[in-house]
Amino acid sequence: MREVDIIGVGMTPFGKHVNTPFIELGGVPVLEVIKNAGIKPSEIQVAFCSYALAGQLFGVAVAGQSILWQAGINKIPVVNIENACTSGSSAFHLAWSMVAGGVYDTALVVGVEKMVVPNFGLISSGDTELDTLEGLVTPASFAIRASRYMEQHGATPAQLAQVAVKNRYHASLNPYAQFRDAITIDDVLNSPMICDPLTKLSCCPNADGAAAVILCSAEKSARYTSKPVRVAASVLVTGNYENPLELVPWETDFRACRLGYEQAGLGPEDVDVAECHDAFTIAEILHYEAMGFCPVGEGARLLESGETTLGGKIPVNPSGGLLSKGHPVGATAVAQLVEGVWQLRGEAGKRQVENAQVFLAHCMGGDKDGDTRSCTINILKI
Amino acid sequence: MREVDIIGVGMTPFGKHVNTPFIELGGVPVLEVIKNAGIKPSEIQVAFCSYALAGQLFGVAVAGQSILWQAGINKIPVVNIENACTSGSSAFHLAWSMVAGGVYDTALVVGVEKMVVPNFGLISSGDTELDTLEGLVTPASFAIRASRYMEQHGATPAQLAQVAVKNRYHASLNPYAQFRDAITIDDVLNSPMICDPLTKLSCCPNADGAAAVILCSAEKSARYTSKPVRVAASVLVTGNYENPLELVPWETDFRACRLGYEQAGLGPEDVDVAECHDAFTIAEILHYEAMGFCPVGEGARLLESGETTLGGKIPVNPSGGLLSKGHPVGATAVAQLVEGVWQLRGEAGKRQVENAQVFLAHCMGGDKDGDTRSCTINILKI
Repeated sequence: MREVDIIGVGMTPFGKHVNTPFIELGGVPVLEVIKNAGIKPSEIQVAFCSYALAGQLFGVAVAGQSILWQAGINKIPVVNIENACTSGSSAFHLAWSMVAGGVYDTALVVGVEKMVVPNFGLISSGDTELDTLEGLVTPASFAIRASRYMEQHGATPAQLAQVAVKNRYHASLNPYAQFRDAITIDDVLNSPMICDPLTKLSCCPNADGAAAVILCSAEKSARYTSKPVRVAASVLVTGNYENPLELVPWETDFRACRLGYEQAGLGPEDVDVAECHDAFTIAEILHYEAMGFCPVGEGARLLESGETTLGGKIPVNPSGGLLSKGHPVGATAVAQLVEGVWQLRGEAGKRQVENAQVFLAHCMGGDKDGDTRSCTINILKI
Repeated sequence: MREVDIIGVGMTPFGKHVNTPFIELGGVPVLEVIKNAGIKPSEIQVAFCSYALAGQLFGVAVAGQSILWQAGINKIPVVNIENACTSGSSAFHLAWSMVAGGVYDTALVVGVEKMVVPNFGLISSGDTELDTLEGLVTPASFAIRASRYMEQHGATPAQLAQVAVKNRYHASLNPYAQFRDAITIDDVLNSPMICDPLTKLSCCPNADGAAAVILCSAEKSARYTSKPVRVAASVLVTGNYENPLELVPWETDFRACRLGYEQAGLGPEDVDVAECHDAFTIAEILHYEAMGFCPVGEGARLLESGETTLGGKIPVNPSGGLLSKGHPVGATAVAQLVEGVWQLRGEAGKRQVENAQVFLAHCMGGDKDGDTRSCTINILKI
């Protein structure tokens, strides 16, 4: 397997792009990433496009080909990917595999979603046949985990709320985030209840958005950039579904992180900055433990210590995370990687983590039998 | 790049599976392919699931993980693929790339679709923003090609109809095909007009169905089967969209075939049997020319000569093709490969092509600007 670099990134601000059609929205970061990487459209050898809801919402299909053609990319293999919240990182994993395996030298990944539509409602938890009908929509499944975690480890609603407060503070420093006004713990606790104990501000909002990256075999990346970012690990796993009654933690989450660290030859202590899938406040706390930033049961206390806030030992979600940026499903996991590249290149502006050299992106999605269907870990370094 | 074999296949009959839920339908060929390959579920290292319409029709998402879990496959990377009619062959191409590139040794591909639903209506041509609104649904775009081809090359409606007659004859020998009763040229010409000159029997019907294959690096395939089928070429290309006014032929179609033959080190004269994307009668005639079975403009005459009928020099669509089997979009291109494996193994029953040693599968899908968005060529040999 060959070493692989990210040589360019691009993204739209996340938020409302109501008047931009889906295909055009996807084209914005493609044009940007080509410029950012200093590559010609004709030099891209394979491309992946991720979106998860556009078929259901707009009847969109085979969109990647149309999105890429706006930037003059044609003829090459293009495949459209759907893998719930990990759609973008699954596309990235395939692109990385192709380049690492020597099938192609360059690969483009673009993730896009439009969700700001009337009467959108709640997204199902994925396994729709029975559990969604019974009420196990996504906020409910995370609320069960939150209640159980609080009972098991003595965490409080105020500690959970602190995740949203921290991430909104980070978002106040990120022009790409949708919601950038500071909030307090009381704001979170007093916002409308969605599913006890998760209030509205404990849940990530909908958003429109798109993001793109270009990968290149390491031996050729110097042709394009003086600041290549190395992919130290790329891991995609599926749930094991073997212990549906164990709601805290996800085995899959721990397994993916362990495989990621093994592949990178690094440990949690080496990570300078991370983005994780904070779809709900409780999720970020659970992911701290899977990522190894603290022992199991200590996530809420790690948060309270300030170590995961900008300026702390291991800032998590410096972008503001899903909780502040919003969660355009197909774009989210690509945007995490864009933030990672900006951090490692020292281009993250007011939210820059000083001397960041190792970045970890965590994403997961698609509930099934008390487990997650898909989980990705991508570790980048400079 | 390493050599790659197909070590097992499985599929459901194509037709109406109204009472079988989507996930269960996808599980049928997965259980079958594992048995056929003589492999344990735990030996599968990566899997791809293709479906193109299930999100729009049923709100289905992240289905591959649930489909595979029914066969005890978990933990491994699973990605869901959508690429119009080439969804299944795009998934196959990714699986082949992964194994050929040495990323994994074994890979499973399952394609599934349910389309027999009330009020399904016509599928859009894909580029929905303007052309579908103006009436350029898929049958219309093929009808334009049919009219133009007849005018340019002197083909007749009866010659076009002969494609449906031939493929229905083939289907009469295939228990997996949906429609198996013989039809005549008059039946085709007198069936209800869909879009002049294409009548109802000139268009492929809807269907439910699923199909699966397992790939393995050639050096390890002998562990599983005494009849491995070698992948001599796997090509996936996207349209060039550079000549929208040239409606006959598709440049993309010719380019994909040329690349396939180059990769295989073979020519059209080496192909013993082929399956092509006969979504409409005119399509098969055009594909003959792209596949190099006759010069441009000679497709209708090749058909009339009987050489593409079972018993002829180069039988095309011995399975009955999309015109007789139906076209469950995400499953279609995987089912083509299943037919190819059966033919090369000598397991095709009454429709067996004698001494078949080289098989070509052609698929395309997703109109855009008078071109096709995606085209795949997979060449198999034994």
